[in-house]
Amino acid sequence: MNYIVKDENAIYYECGYSSDNALFLKLGSEAFFITDSRYAIEAQESVQNATVIIEGDLYTKAHKLIQQSKIKKLTYDPKEWSLFHFHKLTKGLKTKFKEAPDFSHNKRIIKSESELVLLKKAVKLGKKAFDTLAKEIQANWLKEDEYALTYLAKSVLSDYGKYDLSFDPIVAINANAAKPHALPTATKLHKKDLLLVDAGLKYQRYCSDRTRTVSVSKNFGFETEQYFKSKKIQKAYDLVLKAHDNAIEKARSGMKAKEIDALTRDIITKGGYGEYFVHSTGHGVGLDIHEMPYISAKSDTIIEDGMVYTIEPGIYIPGEFGIRIEDMVAMVDGKVEVL
Amino acid sequence: MNYIVKDENAIYYECGYSSDNALFLKLGSEAFFITDSRYAIEAQESVQNATVIIEGDLYTKAHKLIQQSKIKKLTYDPKEWSLFHFHKLTKGLKTKFKEAPDFSHNKRIIKSESELVLLKKAVKLGKKAFDTLAKEIQANWLKEDEYALTYLAKSVLSDYGKYDLSFDPIVAINANAAKPHALPTATKLHKKDLLLVDAGLKYQRYCSDRTRTVSVSKNFGFETEQYFKSKKIQKAYDLVLKAHDNAIEKARSGMKAKEIDALTRDIITKGGYGEYFVHSTGHGVGLDIHEMPYISAKSDTIIEDGMVYTIEPGIYIPGEFGIRIEDMVAMVDGKVEVL
Repeated sequence: MNYIVKDENAIYYECGYSSDNALFLKLGSEAFFITDSRYAIEAQESVQNATVIIEGDLYTKAHKLIQQSKIKKLTYDPKEWSLFHFHKLTKGLKTKFKEAPDFSHNKRIIKSESELVLLKKAVKLGKKAFDTLAKEIQANWLKEDEYALTYLAKSVLSDYGKYDLSFDPIVAINANAAKPHALPTATKLHKKDLLLVDAGLKYQRYCSDRTRTVSVSKNFGFETEQYFKSKKIQKAYDLVLKAHDNAIEKARSGMKAKEIDALTRDIITKGGYGEYFVHSTGHGVGLDIHEMPYISAKSDTIIEDGMVYTIEPGIYIPGEFGIRIEDMVAMVDGKVEVL
Repeated sequence: MNYIVKDENAIYYECGYSSDNALFLKLGSEAFFITDSRYAIEAQESVQNATVIIEGDLYTKAHKLIQQSKIKKLTYDPKEWSLFHFHKLTKGLKTKFKEAPDFSHNKRIIKSESELVLLKKAVKLGKKAFDTLAKEIQANWLKEDEYALTYLAKSVLSDYGKYDLSFDPIVAINANAAKPHALPTATKLHKKDLLLVDAGLKYQRYCSDRTRTVSVSKNFGFETEQYFKSKKIQKAYDLVLKAHDNAIEKARSGMKAKEIDALTRDIITKGGYGEYFVHSTGHGVGLDIHEMPYISAKSDTIIEDGMVYTIEPGIYIPGEFGIRIEDMVAMVDGKVEVL
């Protein structure tokens, strides 16, 4: 199979290296990694099983390689290619370009044993960071605002620069947590506040992802057992936790993704909060923080052993509070293993 | 003029808010900002001069709005659109889609007075951070490795979480500096080492960008006057500084970008290091860290008052050392003002 790959993580998956300006071409038995001179030294040191080509204009070079190869069909992902670059790549070629949406994500949907090892390590480091974060907040960071707490979360998650983050952590207090992708504000943290933290880190490029919503007290921790002062919050929290636990208990390989989504959504809907669960139950995690499978109400994807995804139901009451509980899971022997 | 914009900063420029999943549509006298429910609250608080629409599937919604408007022509940037999303947007519509590469970047190439104020502030904060960084390294961080120093640079540049960064800072020692986009390694910093730092921060979304290459000593600072132990390094350094200063002195509004590129490149080439200056002289800076104008050997762009760009010549000797000196400048009254 002949194909071309453009996304940074998709290229890394092919040859063990990537840069923010690179292409990977598989033409018959040959493979080429093309990048510009800024990355020449690293590419030559790190690319596996492909010829490294250093070139200012990647697209014209790829165009020439395709032309010279005389191959008839080349697969590409239409989500990876802008109209502009695709035109540059294909202009005047006789090759048939065959579109395959999510080409690399499809290849990567079942994780190998070695990928699972890296994902487990990322999750383990992420959990440890949550524990450190709780202790740090208790010791030094009460009365600080979300800006400062977000910085603290970044510092702790990265182990002070050692690891890259999966994404900018979300640290949201009370009503700010009602925004599922909240940006930090000047709101300060006090005891008895609701605190939502959604954060992850990368271990050898593989991502972790975790959310906890807690009631801040002298000795709080990021476990799922939480006691809130407000009965309304407690009721919503218990419902989210029940939904989360239900999916972990009952999800099976062979189910459709939408059936797993229903395992959380039906509980929240029956509890009267359906309209406040405004997103999907989860998403795959790997080299990308969001990849396949998507655990949504519309997805017919069959869930199989080796898939890794999040279970993260939530309830968001605008102007009041937001709750989300998220864990990463892998399908092992037909059932859920929480990572 | 009717147009659709997809890039996050391009959308921000249109309506003062954006998210990582949004579209902006200008249809005659009406404007629409479309995003998903995760960003509903922030969008409703912050979007100016456009109707906010919350929708799970942005592309189908935009498709419908275009259809209902009955407009005949719609401008879009083919660099912003993947084949996949463009197909979803345009399928079956009679509207003529008119491509305009760099549509938003072209609009943004001349900075307004208020944008210049923000860019100057970003540069000023960036400079201050470099000074703090030098003092921190002297006091506590000698013998630390590039990972730790990169973390320190991130902490100082962001003022411990207060500002976003323009990009991940580059902190490279000796031979690692020969990679223009070096990633950190376990190399440790010692006195008399060459240290290259390329870093910037965002002030109200506007970027700063600055590079200094210094000889590390007890009281070093990030000024351009530097004394290296190695004669070979000193010779190359003096040449880069001469090239940098020459462009600042002689660049004029009305010149082509390639003429400004030649102001640095000719000096380095005459000095015998032409083949080691492996990138362009500079790039525009604004909401994006890389935008128009591009100061390259091939660019015919006419440089005008109000344009903001970097001047950053360099010499990179693989396996030995790398040098780059970079400042951000604005064209004011026909000449260069160093920001």
